Amino acid sequence: MTSIGVDLGGTKVQAVVLHGSEVKHDARLVTPAGGPDAVVGAIVECIGALGDGALERADAIGIGVPGAVDRAAGVVRRAPNLTGFGEDVPLAAMVTAALGVKHVTLDNDVDAATVAEHRLGAAKGTDDVLAVFVGTGVGGGLLLGGTIVHGATGAAGEIGHTVVQDGGRACGCGKLGHVESYAGRASIEREARRRHDAGEPTALVELAGDGRMRSSVIAKALAAGDAMTVELLDEAVRALGAGIASAVALLDLPLVVVGGGVADKLGPAFVGRIEEAVRSRLFLASSPVRVVPAALGDLGGAIGAALVAKAAA
Amino acid sequence: MTSIGVDLGGTKVQAVVLHGSEVKHDARLVTPAGGPDAVVGAIVECIGALGDGALERADAIGIGVPGAVDRAAGVVRRAPNLTGFGEDVPLAAMVTAALGVKHVTLDNDVDAATVAEHRLGAAKGTDDVLAVFVGTGVGGGLLLGGTIVHGATGAAGEIGHTVVQDGGRACGCGKLGHVESYAGRASIEREARRRHDAGEPTALVELAGDGRMRSSVIAKALAAGDAMTVELLDEAVRALGAGIASAVALLDLPLVVVGGGVADKLGPAFVGRIEEAVRSRLFLASSPVRVVPAALGDLGGAIGAALVAKAAA
Repeated sequence: MTSIGVDLGGTKVQAVVLHGSEVKHDARLVTPAGGPDAVVGAIVECIGALGDGALERADAIGIGVPGAVDRAAGVVRRAPNLTGFGEDVPLAAMVTAALGVKHVTLDNDVDAATVAEHRLGAAKGTDDVLAVFVGTGVGGGLLLGGTIVHGATGAAGEIGHTVVQDGGRACGCGKLGHVESYAGRASIEREARRRHDAGEPTALVELAGDGRMRSSVIAKALAAGDAMTVELLDEAVRALGAGIASAVALLDLPLVVVGGGVADKLGPAFVGRIEEAVRSRLFLASSPVRVVPAALGDLGGAIGAALVAKAAA
Repeated sequence: MTSIGVDLGGTKVQAVVLHGSEVKHDARLVTPAGGPDAVVGAIVECIGALGDGALERADAIGIGVPGAVDRAAGVVRRAPNLTGFGEDVPLAAMVTAALGVKHVTLDNDVDAATVAEHRLGAAKGTDDVLAVFVGTGVGGGLLLGGTIVHGATGAAGEIGHTVVQDGGRACGCGKLGHVESYAGRASIEREARRRHDAGEPTALVELAGDGRMRSSVIAKALAAGDAMTVELLDEAVRALGAGIASAVALLDLPLVVVGGGVADKLGPAFVGRIEEAVRSRLFLASSPVRVVPAALGDLGGAIGAALVAKAAA
């Protein structure tokens, strides 16, 4: 069976052709800022760039979206990182019409990436797993008994917004002391620029300049031994350790997978430090939990969208 | 159908006769410190005290235990609050023989109390619920899809050992900044005595003297406006608010039930404050979560043990 998966991100659109469990082709382009119609155009273009008659041969097409999704209706409820997606967008119907196909499946991007790690990645064979994605923010997907936990309003899995330092540093969401307050790329950038503006030198700002402080910049500054980077990443490790330890206390999980742009760039050593931080905070000394790096990298979301579509077909 | 439930606690043994969903009789006695044989004797005595031929008429008998339980084998793996239960104790077989019955069901006491709140108490009709019991420690039971989540080693639900103030106050378990570090009765007592010994006066120590600082003492000191009590309970509310908010972020729960000795004594106002504290820490403004007082009080554990036995019969 051949399926197409699209990961619709805030900065880029990525598509893959999945044949069985193998990625045959992939393509990417920059996410346009022109609103839903422009986004639909970009999705069609990205699928077209897969070439090789991918669209004609596909039995199922899925899209992962960075926001709240009504899966049954194929509607994006709210995706704050996409221009023009502040209100309901019937994205599945729009893409279905634009591609001239029968059906398109929508899912949350992080849930899709979690499914991908479970079926084909680092969580293969383990049906109870928390996947944590450390990127611009910190997202998460929770799988229990082999099934994604959606929760009362479809918003479950938000490990990034668990409290680890009550009353602590402000989170992008406006609340205090969340995991994302310390471990998200945007939070690290905000804190680094604040301290830099206050007169503290750091390679982070020197390397990033006025541009976005990418994960690669953080990795470079760390490799150079920059003091502020070491400190900020220590805080990130502690916050992730505390948040994951809390999830393990609540769910007695055997496995946690850590991926996302920041984790991918910092590599297995970063994930190893998180595992140590989790262990030192656990009540249950006999917990079998392992914390391992995600295996599918940047393409996990698109692969997951294809898998979810395939399962629904 | 008539069933008997026994709540084997660290300080008391309680038993109920449940007829359908109604408690017909209950009995209690002090938990003996003589080890497993003495405990079995106390369970038999407590069931005997139910009178009225309860044992002869019961179709099922269940026991809730404060520790790790192998439900299938009927073995208590470890119950640190019971003398002589540091190693495996085949309690189900021992009680079965002592009573001359066919079968006895074992379960964790907190999981049993959670089942009771779900079937007959504050969580009736809601299949996804976290129950938090604030007593000497802070225990929890998690129900998803109407079923208790046991986790990889049967230890799920430990909301008391989620991290809310990383690096913060020591928990009874030895780790730092857990919910129980601030909200458990024993932690409150430890902190009050430490500050009292350092010269800070408090009604908590005046009222408790050298005895155990009971929940009723905490309630009295609060009612009297004792400054340290107000402060310690503010910290308890904040810790419970942060821990529960984290569980809600992870699981998108519609309902949290708060019970246990401390919560029961402090009443609905305390639970209302926890609900506010949860709400002010939530990422998801649209979360439908409600935080409500448990409905079954002290007998919840015994009622739950009877329900679990009935379901297994």
